[in-house]
Amino acid sequence: MKKEWDTLSVLSHARHDWLNKLQLIKGNLALDKVDRVKEIIDEIIIEARKETKLTNLNLPQFASSLLTCNWENHSFQIEYEVTESPNVHLLDDQLLASWTEGLFAALDDSIEKFQENYLSVTIEPGEDGIRFFFDFSGIITDNTSLMSFLERAAAPSMTVQVAAATEDELSIEVFTMPIQGE
Amino acid sequence: MKKEWDTLSVLSHARHDWLNKLQLIKGNLALDKVDRVKEIIDEIIIEARKETKLTNLNLPQFASSLLTCNWENHSFQIEYEVTESPNVHLLDDQLLASWTEGLFAALDDSIEKFQENYLSVTIEPGEDGIRFFFDFSGIITDNTSLMSFLERAAAPSMTVQVAAATEDELSIEVFTMPIQGE
Repeated sequence: MKKEWDTLSVLSHARHDWLNKLQLIKGNLALDKVDRVKEIIDEIIIEARKETKLTNLNLPQFASSLLTCNWENHSFQIEYEVTESPNVHLLDDQLLASWTEGLFAALDDSIEKFQENYLSVTIEPGEDGIRFFFDFSGIITDNTSLMSFLERAAAPSMTVQVAAATEDELSIEVFTMPIQGE
Repeated sequence: MKKEWDTLSVLSHARHDWLNKLQLIKGNLALDKVDRVKEIIDEIIIEARKETKLTNLNLPQFASSLLTCNWENHSFQIEYEVTESPNVHLLDDQLLASWTEGLFAALDDSIEKFQENYLSVTIEPGEDGIRFFFDFSGIITDNTSLMSFLERAAAPSMTVQVAAATEDELSIEVFTMPIQGE
């Protein structure tokens, strides 16, 4: 199941990530590339705003799963995008988080390690609920456990639809309805 | 008792702190103060190394208490220093952390809010154990609960000595012995 992150580990990983960004700034500054440094800073701020948007979705477990995913020993890297939306829905966070962790595990079992494997997650809050697009690109060696996970894991309040599945691509659309009518 | 920090809150606070540092870099860069930016980056790296040293003391609960202290609504700000040492001791982390949290609470009860109140913690690993110096400077309005905490809170494996106590200063030396002989 999901690894529980303690405060010190979260801080250590976050510190490591931020120091990498700082090194990039420092390196470009040493080369007098001040304009590039300004660009990097703007990119970091955009990235941070994205994290804030994810955090504000009111899905703490799901958001934690995405934000800590790259710190775990997965065979893929994750990136995500949250589209602008005035809608906030109360979804089943626990269900969504455990499904997502299940997808991570199924991917680990199905893809070739040490390759350029990426999972891109797009989160689109809409009027009736939130749509989640999980797009994997990389090398799928055996999609048996992946397909079995996808068939097994659906819940009544959650629809899972496979939009594309080839050996180097997998697109899944997940839709979850709000817990309470709004 | 101690607030438990969840992953998202830790990340949000850490992000906020790092973005403040980044704004400082961005601001100085906008003023073409490249040398100042380089200094700021070096200071941030030193600060991060200090955090790493604190993390590596093998006192996760105590370290978490110090690292999250400034995110809680205390009436003082904390700063800390860990001296270089080849010695690592296995101390009673739980005892030390709960004593430290007790000190934070007793300070909150004893000092004037919205003043320049600082608690400086120096951690000196030595051959026989670790010495902790807690030096408060600020405005102490009523030291009754502070003194009662200091008298009450000692444990057999931990000695607490008040080195100085005036209305604007309090120095406490804490020594804890290793749990196991090394």
